[in-house]
Amino acid sequence: MPKLTTRSVPAHALPLLDRFRRVRRQTEALAEPLSPEDQTVQSMPDASPTKWHLAHTTWFFETFVLKPRLPHYRAFEPAYEYLFNSYYEAVGPRHPRPQRGLITRPGVGEILAYRRSVTEAMAELIGSNRSEETGLIELGLHHEQQHQELILMDIKHALSLNPLFPAYAPERAPKASGASLGWIDFEGGLVETGHAGEGFAFDNEGPRHRSWVDPFALATRLVTCGEYQAFVDEGGYRRPEFWLSAGWDLVKQRGWQAPLYWHEDGIFTLAGLRPRRAEEPVCHVSFYEAAAYAKWAGKRLPREEEWELAAPDVTSCASMVGANMLDARHLHPVPAHSEGLAQMIGDVWEWTASPYVAYPGFREPPGAIGEYNGKFMANQMVLRGGCAATPRDHIRATYRNFFPPDARWMFGGIRLAEDLR
Amino acid sequence: MPKLTTRSVPAHALPLLDRFRRVRRQTEALAEPLSPEDQTVQSMPDASPTKWHLAHTTWFFETFVLKPRLPHYRAFEPAYEYLFNSYYEAVGPRHPRPQRGLITRPGVGEILAYRRSVTEAMAELIGSNRSEETGLIELGLHHEQQHQELILMDIKHALSLNPLFPAYAPERAPKASGASLGWIDFEGGLVETGHAGEGFAFDNEGPRHRSWVDPFALATRLVTCGEYQAFVDEGGYRRPEFWLSAGWDLVKQRGWQAPLYWHEDGIFTLAGLRPRRAEEPVCHVSFYEAAAYAKWAGKRLPREEEWELAAPDVTSCASMVGANMLDARHLHPVPAHSEGLAQMIGDVWEWTASPYVAYPGFREPPGAIGEYNGKFMANQMVLRGGCAATPRDHIRATYRNFFPPDARWMFGGIRLAEDLR
Amino acid sequence: MPKLTTRSVPAHALPLLDRFRRVRRQTEALAEPLSPEDQTVQSMPDASPTKWHLAHTTWFFETFVLKPRLPHYRAFEPAYEYLFNSYYEAVGPRHPRPQRGLITRPGVGEILAYRRSVTEAMAELIGSNRSEETGLIELGLHHEQQHQELILMDIKHALSLNPLFPAYAPERAPKASGASLGWIDFEGGLVETGHAGEGFAFDNEGPRHRSWVDPFALATRLVTCGEYQAFVDEGGYRRPEFWLSAGWDLVKQRGWQAPLYWHEDGIFTLAGLRPRRAEEPVCHVSFYEAAAYAKWAGKRLPREEEWELAAPDVTSCASMVGANMLDARHLHPVPAHSEGLAQMIGDVWEWTASPYVAYPGFREPPGAIGEYNGKFMANQMVLRGGCAATPRDHIRATYRNFFPPDARWMFGGIRLAEDLR
Amino acid sequence: MPKLTTRSVPAHALPLLDRFRRVRRQTEALAEPLSPEDQTVQSMPDASPTKWHLAHTTWFFETFVLKPRLPHYRAFEPAYEYLFNSYYEAVGPRHPRPQRGLITRPGVGEILAYRRSVTEAMAELIGSNRSEETGLIELGLHHEQQHQELILMDIKHALSLNPLFPAYAPERAPKASGASLGWIDFEGGLVETGHAGEGFAFDNEGPRHRSWVDPFALATRLVTCGEYQAFVDEGGYRRPEFWLSAGWDLVKQRGWQAPLYWHEDGIFTLAGLRPRRAEEPVCHVSFYEAAAYAKWAGKRLPREEEWELAAPDVTSCASMVGANMLDARHLHPVPAHSEGLAQMIGDVWEWTASPYVAYPGFREPPGAIGEYNGKFMANQMVLRGGCAATPRDHIRATYRNFFPPDARWMFGGIRLAEDLR
Repeated sequence: MPKLTTRSVPAHALPLLDRFRRVRRQTEALAEPLSPEDQTVQSMPDASPTKWHLAHTTWFFETFVLKPRLPHYRAFEPAYEYLFNSYYEAVGPRHPRPQRGLITRPGVGEILAYRRSVTEAMAELIGSNRSEETGLIELGLHHEQQHQELILMDIKHALSLNPLFPAYAPERAPKASGASLGWIDFEGGLVETGHAGEGFAFDNEGPRHRSWVDPFALATRLVTCGEYQAFVDEGGYRRPEFWLSAGWDLVKQRGWQAPLYWHEDGIFTLAGLRPRRAEEPVCHVSFYEAAAYAKWAGKRLPREEEWELAAPDVTSCASMVGANMLDARHLHPVPAHSEGLAQMIGDVWEWTASPYVAYPGFREPPGAIGEYNGKFMANQMVLRGGCAATPRDHIRATYRNFFPPDARWMFGGIRLAEDLR
Repeated sequence: MPKLTTRSVPAHALPLLDRFRRVRRQTEALAEPLSPEDQTVQSMPDASPTKWHLAHTTWFFETFVLKPRLPHYRAFEPAYEYLFNSYYEAVGPRHPRPQRGLITRPGVGEILAYRRSVTEAMAELIGSNRSEETGLIELGLHHEQQHQELILMDIKHALSLNPLFPAYAPERAPKASGASLGWIDFEGGLVETGHAGEGFAFDNEGPRHRSWVDPFALATRLVTCGEYQAFVDEGGYRRPEFWLSAGWDLVKQRGWQAPLYWHEDGIFTLAGLRPRRAEEPVCHVSFYEAAAYAKWAGKRLPREEEWELAAPDVTSCASMVGANMLDARHLHPVPAHSEGLAQMIGDVWEWTASPYVAYPGFREPPGAIGEYNGKFMANQMVLRGGCAATPRDHIRATYRNFFPPDARWMFGGIRLAEDLR
Repeated sequence: MPKLTTRSVPAHALPLLDRFRRVRRQTEALAEPLSPEDQTVQSMPDASPTKWHLAHTTWFFETFVLKPRLPHYRAFEPAYEYLFNSYYEAVGPRHPRPQRGLITRPGVGEILAYRRSVTEAMAELIGSNRSEETGLIELGLHHEQQHQELILMDIKHALSLNPLFPAYAPERAPKASGASLGWIDFEGGLVETGHAGEGFAFDNEGPRHRSWVDPFALATRLVTCGEYQAFVDEGGYRRPEFWLSAGWDLVKQRGWQAPLYWHEDGIFTLAGLRPRRAEEPVCHVSFYEAAAYAKWAGKRLPREEEWELAAPDVTSCASMVGANMLDARHLHPVPAHSEGLAQMIGDVWEWTASPYVAYPGFREPPGAIGEYNGKFMANQMVLRGGCAATPRDHIRATYRNFFPPDARWMFGGIRLAEDLR
Repeated sequence: MPKLTTRSVPAHALPLLDRFRRVRRQTEALAEPLSPEDQTVQSMPDASPTKWHLAHTTWFFETFVLKPRLPHYRAFEPAYEYLFNSYYEAVGPRHPRPQRGLITRPGVGEILAYRRSVTEAMAELIGSNRSEETGLIELGLHHEQQHQELILMDIKHALSLNPLFPAYAPERAPKASGASLGWIDFEGGLVETGHAGEGFAFDNEGPRHRSWVDPFALATRLVTCGEYQAFVDEGGYRRPEFWLSAGWDLVKQRGWQAPLYWHEDGIFTLAGLRPRRAEEPVCHVSFYEAAAYAKWAGKRLPREEEWELAAPDVTSCASMVGANMLDARHLHPVPAHSEGLAQMIGDVWEWTASPYVAYPGFREPPGAIGEYNGKFMANQMVLRGGCAATPRDHIRATYRNFFPPDARWMFGGIRLAEDLR
């Protein structure tokens, strides 16, 4: 199992070159427990092979930083521009996403060589201290951290289809848990949310803007597997009255009867198949399941402004300083205890009731980079808070993740909300 | 072509029984230009046969009013409960929607007999003046008016697939037009929108609630075919930079090159194929096309609160009193002129930038009727303002129509908005 | 229910003009029990609306006889050439088959007018006694007779999807039956089969050719519903060992558990839903089911040469002279008794073990007519003998019907064979 | 590139143990040029990963020989019974075929260990000389040789989808060619074909049986790429008159414009992309394309009896003794010259006009092995003669290969025939 030395300062306080090397190294560490065979497959069109993630994050730096900024830079291999472009229409034609799992060459060895070559060229560029690229490099690092989470999501899905249920890595003993569900009230009013301009944020987190929020309450912790089991036991997957119409159609079409990765009393995790624990947060539910559960429970999902108002200021959150993200990320998420709101950051992503749309005043950045987030603003729901697979120095209170409402392979769970009036 | 005597008082001011008979009669008048063959077919899963609409609106009154309220009421034909249920899971099993066009019996004659029988039973009930059903009957009438518009949408789609391009009814000479595009500014601020509780409204129009609106401007009229043609001519359907990602995928998959019903220089309307006019509002575009056009034009679509702030109070709008909705509804919409904002009500539905979600504080009504609107709150976008096929006494400034972002067969068009800051 | 006067001479002995009028009239008589709504729908891509059959058989005479032979002939409606072409690539573009059920206009009335117009023009041409068209007119009549059977197959399928299970026409009391299954031995040897050149035959029935046939035996009658029920009861649809691999895949994909139109103890027929009788021939099975049944029974299906060797000379078969085909055709087939081989002609089509290929020496006729049969010689299996819906003067011992091995909506049943050695 | 010492005696004359080891070693040699990544992928449902072939052929010996015959044999890994069963329903449940490419573990290394373990257990069993297993072991060896060809077919398809067009192995210089097309006449008559009982043959090659064959002629060599190019140039893929109806539908649906692996003037081979040579046999055509070409050329495809009558007695064919099959198999097939009929054995498989059905008198062997060939006797066409990827001691004049008529990824080509009368 990969291990990195725990550092005593948060990553975002490190000099850029150190952070660059650390993030690059971390991506490779995540691939290390996987064989070349493991790194090659694509288990569904939405997922990608590990080695594609290794290459694509490298392609990003080569395409957006090295090629335009280093006049004499020669592409490591010109065909990679086509093979490892993901969705940037402005950059040129792309290899079709559903066929990523058919590209056996370049193999893992060649892709690691590609990584080394680009990392060194980048390191040299960063060392030369040309300030104008800093923003782009920060973007590239956060982009790569997103793919670190995708590597774990995608390989979990691929391994889950193997009837031998192989493990990515052994599980660490989870902390004990068992807090009862409480509620915390919020007054609401005319509020401001969105990123304020300090520190890195994706374009879709801003601009900071006003909105009116009615009084509401938020559950103190995530819904657990035990609570979700009660929903299943009461016919949750057989009773249309709890479901959005499109969700009910899916329940019937796909034969859903429980969250993804549930097997009788067991659960498939990155450590293989193991017994399910009543007190662990339910995870790998779609938005439709989250909404159906909330309706069954007589509650609702929080809106993203509500969630953000309640979220801690992550960057000053002492309990997270020095967290070694690798220790936990291969595990099925387990709850942490705290006073007040628990688990908002870094346990499981929390589905909100908010469709993913632009904030008032949003403008896409110019150029290919502008394709980054804005063009996905349709048919997706916002999730907040990060999960055990999210790098700790990558998550923020304003961070907006988004997935289609039927997606289940990311680490998505449920926190309840209710109106106070 | 069907004709009803123009009345000098608005329909919603009439006694309930008069309105009931008038709405029922209007539905039948809409079917009159159609042969039994026409009334039988279903051209796609989202559409329904005319005779199904005739029957389903009748089923609604039989199921929700007559059966529960009249102790000795005997169903006209028990099998109709199964055949003409649309999506009410709570009522029982339903005939599969995509197979509605395969049900040749009951034929048009039997369905008209079913209508007469239920209309008479209802008339008797209304005449007996039991006040407690009034709300339900109002709901049934507005439900039937929604299906009046669907009858026209659906038969237009069916006839459009016939290579002979047959007409539903002859076209009336449209009024001349040609206003240039202007902009009206709005200050915004902390506003209230949503239905206030007076007069009929669907559940999804309330509760009235606050929201913060930044300063914005709204175009004085709808986008025209001539303006949209410029977008097409500049490669609108070939340039991904204007499109949401999901929209661009559809452009390629479905080979979209223009709005639905465009044929070279012609346009298919309920009066058959005729030349396209530059000054008529563009219609039968999907949300994706509306959003792509707006991006190409350097603007955006309005949010639904913005639209509602700007909308006239329809019920007091003198120009609409006494409007004979049948005169215009079979036509391809043509623009009306007025000072300030034109065409907001009754020309074409206007796509907004707002996903269809519950307003803060929304609660579904109990029982099967509660399935009416809430369960569709996923993957749909809001449209506002009604169209030429919408009955005039059915539309309101707070009315929220909703369709999936790829739908094009309803009468949906584009009004531009922009930020003022 | 339609009725034609019984005639005392076989149709093929009548003068051409009489036969022409009789066949044309018969097609219309078959449509008479059906409403305009019934005649409009298409229940699956393989089926066609009744009114399309009425028009297409008329199109055939107009296109292949009237237009080329009558210099001053004016098309009844030029667009019909496009609308009612079925698969003749050489004639020009065609309306897509799966959309035939969406064409509501021309309606039934206009199509009957089209029929009358073409019938009269043809009658005039036939009366003028130009001998050169005789072959083509014979072909057109047999083509129309094929569509008579298709009208019944297709409307049976459409009505079967209506949960009210409506009847096409009332059933006549079937004759009693109950013969036990016997076997008749054949020596085989070097034999000749195929059409000999006398009387009408389709191109695919010739040329007459030699083949070697090993000794075999043929069952004296068709497999009954009671016998087939035993196969079902012994797990026939759950045990892969009886099935061809492609058939087993279908059993699972489509959830087949019994022949088409079986409902618990009932059976859907052209007279509606009625109890199933143990002694009636099993019908509406696919080739895969026929082959699986035979394997379960320890037998096999006959090859087409074997079947043809055993078949009676239909044209001299006394029991068939004067048969009024309409009396029986709307019924679910019931067995007739006779000495020796029973039911070979006119009960149900009998699946053979023979793929549909060209006989040695086969050459396609030139021109569009040459597309008639040859181009379907792939992925189809041969059926022999006709069914209760087949016009009696249309069937022959050499007649080769063919359908894909998964097709079930035609009247297809099972006769067993076995090797004698 | 793998190389085996050329032996001076034909493989089938070797002692069983030698042949067993030689075949097992040959399979592994074929995989050696491939990386673990290459060996993992499945490029379409019909294909399988290389490592699956390595495992499945091993599973065959373990399941059908070792487990039933060696009382104390312990399965190498019980889960492999499920993972590496292909289609033997009688053996138990199987892993779904389309998901073979998702099984990353066991990896190549573990599968090679599995092979070694089973090979040694088998060698011990063979050495112990129990005569009763000989037939089963022969079957297992021929089964494995079939998979040797599949390894090459499947990896060629997978590599062809990589835009880098990587090579499996370098090409050897092909022999010169250029014979003009001649015809050889055959008298036909009452003939016998099928396997006579001596030496190994699959069940579907027998029993030997009579049939009548009319006089015919066979082309002296295969159709070349140059000849096929003329068909393409004359609109072969745009003119429906040459095509079977089902074939024409595919041409339109799949956009076929040339054989699989043609690229402009190039051709993708196991040695990568290279220029196409006019005189090489056309290959990777479907049955539909073969039949369309023949119709365009005014000829037809041979029936399988005709082909077999003309085929040389392979086992006595001097030119094949000692042939090192590995030298040629990775190459795109190139023509060999000879007097009379050339290329019948070992160049490309030749599509026949014969659907794949049981010979008269055929009976399936009992048990799971009986599933081997018989259950595929539907919707497939027979091919004869083997190809450059077929082991030489595996092919026979009576050998019947079969594929669906739309399949193109095997090495299938065209020899013309015609009637002599």
